[in-house]
Amino acid sequence: MAVTQVEIRSGAYYDSVLLMHLQRSLAALPNILDAGVVMGTDANKEILAQSGLLRPEAQATAADDLLIVVRAADEAAAQSALAQVDELLTRRRVSLEQEYRPQSLETAVQTLPEAHWVLVSVPGRYAAGVARQALRLDRHVFLYSDNVSLDDEMALKRTAAEKGLLIMGPDCGTAIVNGVGLGFANRVRRGPIGVVAAAGTGLQAVTSRIHRLGSGVTHALGTGSRDLSQAVGAVAARQGLDLLSRDPDTQVIVLVSKPPAPAVADGLLRAARSAAKPVVVDFIGYRPSARQVDNLHFASTLDEAAELAVSLTKDEGRRTEDEGRRTKSSPFAPGQRYLRGLFSGGTLAYEALHILQDYLPGVYSNVPLDKQYRLANSLLSQEHTIVDLGEDEFTVGRLHPMLDNDLRIRRLQQEADDPEVAVILLDVVLGYGAHPDPAGELAPAIAEARARAEQAGRHLEVVAVVVGTDEDPQGLEAQIRQLEAAGARVETSNEAAVRAVGRLLRSGETKDEGQRPKSVDLSVLHRPFAAINVGLESFTESLRAQGAPVVQVDWRPPAGGDERLAALLERMRG
Amino acid sequence: MAVTQVEIRSGAYYDSVLLMHLQRSLAALPNILDAGVVMGTDANKEILAQSGLLRPEAQATAADDLLIVVRAADEAAAQSALAQVDELLTRRRVSLEQEYRPQSLETAVQTLPEAHWVLVSVPGRYAAGVARQALRLDRHVFLYSDNVSLDDEMALKRTAAEKGLLIMGPDCGTAIVNGVGLGFANRVRRGPIGVVAAAGTGLQAVTSRIHRLGSGVTHALGTGSRDLSQAVGAVAARQGLDLLSRDPDTQVIVLVSKPPAPAVADGLLRAARSAAKPVVVDFIGYRPSARQVDNLHFASTLDEAAELAVSLTKDEGRRTEDEGRRTKSSPFAPGQRYLRGLFSGGTLAYEALHILQDYLPGVYSNVPLDKQYRLANSLLSQEHTIVDLGEDEFTVGRLHPMLDNDLRIRRLQQEADDPEVAVILLDVVLGYGAHPDPAGELAPAIAEARARAEQAGRHLEVVAVVVGTDEDPQGLEAQIRQLEAAGARVETSNEAAVRAVGRLLRSGETKDEGQRPKSVDLSVLHRPFAAINVGLESFTESLRAQGAPVVQVDWRPPAGGDERLAALLERMRG
Repeated sequence: MAVTQVEIRSGAYYDSVLLMHLQRSLAALPNILDAGVVMGTDANKEILAQSGLLRPEAQATAADDLLIVVRAADEAAAQSALAQVDELLTRRRVSLEQEYRPQSLETAVQTLPEAHWVLVSVPGRYAAGVARQALRLDRHVFLYSDNVSLDDEMALKRTAAEKGLLIMGPDCGTAIVNGVGLGFANRVRRGPIGVVAAAGTGLQAVTSRIHRLGSGVTHALGTGSRDLSQAVGAVAARQGLDLLSRDPDTQVIVLVSKPPAPAVADGLLRAARSAAKPVVVDFIGYRPSARQVDNLHFASTLDEAAELAVSLTKDEGRRTEDEGRRTKSSPFAPGQRYLRGLFSGGTLAYEALHILQDYLPGVYSNVPLDKQYRLANSLLSQEHTIVDLGEDEFTVGRLHPMLDNDLRIRRLQQEADDPEVAVILLDVVLGYGAHPDPAGELAPAIAEARARAEQAGRHLEVVAVVVGTDEDPQGLEAQIRQLEAAGARVETSNEAAVRAVGRLLRSGETKDEGQRPKSVDLSVLHRPFAAINVGLESFTESLRAQGAPVVQVDWRPPAGGDERLAALLERMRG
Repeated sequence: MAVTQVEIRSGAYYDSVLLMHLQRSLAALPNILDAGVVMGTDANKEILAQSGLLRPEAQATAADDLLIVVRAADEAAAQSALAQVDELLTRRRVSLEQEYRPQSLETAVQTLPEAHWVLVSVPGRYAAGVARQALRLDRHVFLYSDNVSLDDEMALKRTAAEKGLLIMGPDCGTAIVNGVGLGFANRVRRGPIGVVAAAGTGLQAVTSRIHRLGSGVTHALGTGSRDLSQAVGAVAARQGLDLLSRDPDTQVIVLVSKPPAPAVADGLLRAARSAAKPVVVDFIGYRPSARQVDNLHFASTLDEAAELAVSLTKDEGRRTEDEGRRTKSSPFAPGQRYLRGLFSGGTLAYEALHILQDYLPGVYSNVPLDKQYRLANSLLSQEHTIVDLGEDEFTVGRLHPMLDNDLRIRRLQQEADDPEVAVILLDVVLGYGAHPDPAGELAPAIAEARARAEQAGRHLEVVAVVVGTDEDPQGLEAQIRQLEAAGARVETSNEAAVRAVGRLLRSGETKDEGQRPKSVDLSVLHRPFAAINVGLESFTESLRAQGAPVVQVDWRPPAGGDERLAALLERMRG
C-alpha cells in the first residue's frame, strides 16, 4: 500500500523555481507515485489535500515553512526520496551559480551602470523593499511580484512619480520597452502602436494580434492590476499615457484594463483625450455610450482593440481634420454657455440626451435620462436643456410639432433672448404626413433669432438635423438650403449634429489637469534596454535571448528571512 | 395699448387642424398682434401665459373647453376678430366637406371593403374606442393618437393578438407597409431591410439613412412608445419581429427602441435570435456587452443601425455558415452540461466571464463578475466555473501557471472526471519568460483527460486559446499542432474561443418560447395597402399622394362628446 511521508523545514527561503525542480526530481525517483514541494500556506495545503498529499503533521505548518511531501509505493522508497532532498537542492544550486553574481542591488548597479531598469520577482513580502531600493538608486522598476500590499504600492508609486521614474506593477506580468520583452512577453514586430495595460494577458493578447495583423508595437507598458483602483489612482497608467503621447514613433495608443473606478476612468479618459493621437480604449466589460468620441475609440474585446488600432494607423487624414476643428477659438460672448434643444422627434431627443453624456455634465429635459434633471416646468429651460415638444403633455388639443411649428417658433425666440444660451439644436423631420414646408416657417424664425442675439452682442449657433430623403415631398435639398441660408448648420445625421454641439460646448475640461504626474523623461523608452534582475532567473535568460545586457542579483531575503529584523534594517536605511 | 380678449366654448369638439387654422386666421386679421386657440388643459394655459395670452377668466377652463384668445391693437379689433370665429370655422369646414364621407367606421368598411387597415388619430380619450371598433371589424390598426391610457393599450393589444391582428400604437407616429408610408413617414426605396421600431423618429431616421446609403426597406413597423414596457410586454414588437422573420423579402431586420424593461429585452432578444436572419438592435443608450452575438448585431446610434443593416445585406455567405454551425446536434452525454475554464491569464479569464454573459446564466469563479458567483473554494468548481490560476492565492511559494503547468494538469484531470463537465477551456500563453513548451506538457494531459471521459461514455470538448506570435520562442504553429493532435479545438482569439464554448453550451433556450402571439397572416404586408382614416385629414391626403385607396370618416365624438354617455354606448356594443 502506498505511503505518504512529510518533511518540514522551518523559516528557510528557496525560490519557486527551485521548489518546482525539487518536486519534479522527487516525483521522478524510483517507486515515487507523487510529490509536493510548497510553502505551507493554507491554499497550498489545500492543493496538497486535493492530490491526497496532505498528512496530519503538515496541517500546522506556517506560510514560511517549506513542506516536502512524497507518496511512494513503500516506506523505503519514501525515506530514500526524502533523504535525497539536500543533495537535489545542492545539485540544482551549483548548476545555477557558475557565473559571478553580485549579492546586492548596489553592487549590481556598479557592475552594469547603464542598466536603467530593475526587474523584481522575489516573493511578495520582500518585493516592496527591493523596489524601494531600486527607486533610491534612480532606476525604473518592473515589479512582477504579486502579494504586495496596497499601502506599499501606493507609497512606491508616489515616490516614483515624484522622482520622474516609472514603476510598472506590482503584479505586472508583462511589458515591451524599446523592443525588449520583460516578464512574460510575446515577440512582436516593432511598429506604430503603443500600449498601456493594467491587464497582463490583455497586453499579450493585444500585442500578439497587432503582430498577426501585420502591424507592430513601439512600446507596451504594464501598470499592475490595481493601478486603476481608486486608491492608486492610475499613477502608472497616466505616466504611460503621457509617455506614449509624447513619443513621436507612437501613432496610435491602446489602453487596456478591467473597468477602472469611475472617477479614475473619467480622469484617465480626459488625459487620453488630450493626447494628440487616437486612443483605443478597452475597459474590458465596460459599456461605453458610443464607439467613438473624438480621438477615443472604444473596443469591446481585446481582438477588436488590436484591429481598431491597426486600422487607425492607416487613417491619418481624418484625425488631422478633427484636430483642426477642435482647436478653433470660441465664437461665444462671455456668459454664453448653454444648449437648448427643441425637438419634435422624441427618439431624436432621447438619442441626443444619450450622446451628450459624452460631453456635458447633465442635461435637463421633460424626458430626462435621470430624474434629477427633470425640468420643473417643461416650458422653461434650465442650464443645458433638451425638450421633446412632441410629448403627450404638449399634444392635447394641439397638433404634433411635426405638423404645427407654432410652439417651436415661440420657444426658439424665448431661448434666443436668454443671454446664457450659446447653441440651439433642433430637428426638422420631413416625409409624408409632416408639415409641407417646415423650413419655410422655421428658417425665418432662425434668422430672426440669430439677428436678435447679434444685436445684443452675442453669437447664437443654430444646429439643425434634417431627417428625410431626396424623394420626400418637401424636397430634402430645398429644405436644407433654406435652413443654411438662415445661418443654421445643417446635418442629416442626428449623431453628427449632437456631437458637433457637444464639441462646441465642451468647456475647457482639459485645461485644469493640475495633478499630472511629473513627466518621465522619454529616454526611458529610447535608450537601449539594460536591466538588473532580482528574482526569477528565467527573466534573465529571456533578456539575454533578446540581446539585452542584464545582471542577475544573487538575492537572499534580508536578515536571512527574519522579517522583523529586515523591517528594522529597512527603516535604518531611510 | 394692446388688449387681450378671451372666448370660451364649453364641451365643443374641434379637431386640432381646425384649431391651428383658426388661430392662424385670427392672427392674420387686421390689428391682431397674436392669437391662441387651444383646448383648456393646464399645459396649454401655461403656453398661453408664456406668450402673454392668458387672461384671468381663462384660468378656470377645463381640458374639454375650447379657449380662444386674441391680443389686438385695440378693443374694436379684438371684438371684431372674435365675432368672426364662427364664420372662420364654417368656412374651413365647408372646404373640407365637398366629397362624400361616411360617418361611421362600419359604413366606411362597406364603402371600401378591401381596406384592411384603420388609421386612428382622433384625440386620445376617444382613440381606444375607435381602435376597439376597428378590431371588431377585423381590421389592423395604426393608432397614431397619444394620451391613451395604459390599460386601454394592454386590452387592445391582447384583443389584437388573440385575433391575429396587428396594432401599432398608441402613440405610433410612423410606419411603412408594403411601400406605403403611414402617419409621418419618409419616402424611401424598397429593398431588403425590415424595421421594427418602438421609436417614431427612430424609425424615420433609420429608414431615411438606409435610403441614403442606396439600399431600401421592405416594411417598417411601429409599435408605439410603451410597447416594450413590462406592462405591455412587447406584444406589437414581437408580432412585428415574427412577421419580418417570415417575410421572404426581408433579409435583415432592424429593431429600434429606447431601452426596454430588462425582462422584456431578454424575451425580445431571444425571439430575435430565433429569427433565421441577421437582426440589428439599437436599444438607444443600452450598452450591450458585445457588438455581435450570433445573428444579433448591436448598434449604438440610429445611423450605425442603418449602416450595419445595409452592410449585412451584402454579407450572405457568413450567415449561412453560422447557421450551419448552430444546428449541429449535441455531442454530449445526458448530464454533461458544465464549462470549466482553467486560465493562467487573469485578463483572459476576466474577458471570458464577460463574453459568457451572452450565453450562460451565471459563471462561478475565484474572480467573479458578481459576488454571488464567488467559488466557496477556489480548488473546487461549481456548475459553470472559470478559475484564474494566476491569482495571488495560488502564487505564494509557487510559480505562476504560465511557468509551471503542474497545478493546471492536476485540475484538468479533476474536471475531466466530473460527469457533469462538458467543456474544458484553457489558455496557453507563449512568449519570452513563459514555459518553454507548454503544449508539450498540456497536450498529453488533454489527450488523457479526453480518453478517460470517452471510457466513461462521455464526450469531453477541450477548447484552447493560444496567445502568441510566429516569432515566439516556443513556435506558435508547433504548439497549436500539439494541442490539436491531442484533440483540442484551438483558437488564437480569446473571444472566438469563448464564443465557441458559449454556443456549445447554450441550452435549448429558444425551444420553450410558449407564449408567442398568434401569428399574423403575412398577407397584412403583401396585400396592396388600403385604409380607412379616422382623424387627421392630412393622413388621408398623404395616402392619396402615395396612390393608396383610402376613405376618410367624418368622425365626431360619440354621444356628441358626452363621455359618460359614450362609455355607456360602448358597453352596450360589447
